[in-house]
Amino acid sequence: MQLKSQVEWALHCCTVLGGLPAGRYIPAKALAEFHNVPKEYLSKALQSLSQAGIVESILGKAGGYRLARPMAAITILDIVEAVEGRRSTFACSEIRANNPCRPTGHRDTGPCAIARVMWNADEAWRQSLAGVRLSDIAETLSAEVPGEILARSTQWLLDRAG
Amino acid sequence: MQLKSQVEWALHCCTVLGGLPAGRYIPAKALAEFHNVPKEYLSKALQSLSQAGIVESILGKAGGYRLARPMAAITILDIVEAVEGRRSTFACSEIRANNPCRPTGHRDTGPCAIARVMWNADEAWRQSLAGVRLSDIAETLSAEVPGEILARSTQWLLDRAG
Repeated sequence: MQLKSQVEWALHCCTVLGGLPAGRYIPAKALAEFHNVPKEYLSKALQSLSQAGIVESILGKAGGYRLARPMAAITILDIVEAVEGRRSTFACSEIRANNPCRPTGHRDTGPCAIARVMWNADEAWRQSLAGVRLSDIAETLSAEVPGEILARSTQWLLDRAG
Repeated sequence: MQLKSQVEWALHCCTVLGGLPAGRYIPAKALAEFHNVPKEYLSKALQSLSQAGIVESILGKAGGYRLARPMAAITILDIVEAVEGRRSTFACSEIRANNPCRPTGHRDTGPCAIARVMWNADEAWRQSLAGVRLSDIAETLSAEVPGEILARSTQWLLDRAG
């Protein structure tokens, strides 16, 4: 079980967009080139982020994407769920109901014990992701990535921004 | 991102096998019939459980599967990883290295900040699963499933056991 590649791309793109000055938009083409990922598949992820209200886009020559809210108001879970959906990683198909020994018409009083354990673990995963904001990632990167690379990257993106 | 159906089946099968008296084996056919799942796909999951040392099997007319260790010595994570593998749910493809502004030959000092956040969440999911033993599930089911269904199920399985 693995997340789509677009989750990784979306996380990197949102981090990049968070570094933009207010009012600037980055085209999908530039985001794809910066990360060397296929533009068509990246665009789908950007559309999902847009539908989730994480990024906003404008069309046209100077168009592109920017964050729709401050980095501190976007969690990693927001981004992951925008791309992957909110469906639990465990789908209970109620196979306990297939037991040939159950009386006809027997009704369970609650969800299966096995499903509950699996859903709890899914919740622990989501809580971990909800506990990190995009601004936390940006802070870590500021401390870890050499200033020269950060400055050159910002300039590279601004040269292509609307 | 969702777990294979076989994870659900494996969890139910291990719970069922844990209710067997010592020395008895349940054929894959009976496990498939009890849960109404396709025997061929279930067999693959049972083979994975066998390779992971969670169940053991014997061949032949009275053959089948039983748990290889006590229920208290098997965690839900053991079963999930036997079927799904241990690979992290987040695969970092190092797209930061594609940044056109990085000097040639630049080497990062550690894993990407984004990957670390995603791996931590994966670990939180696994820890949650590792904190529940198969014996905990059996206890919950004993308390929740009507005694009559449990008794009839055990008899149904023993009638087909080696």
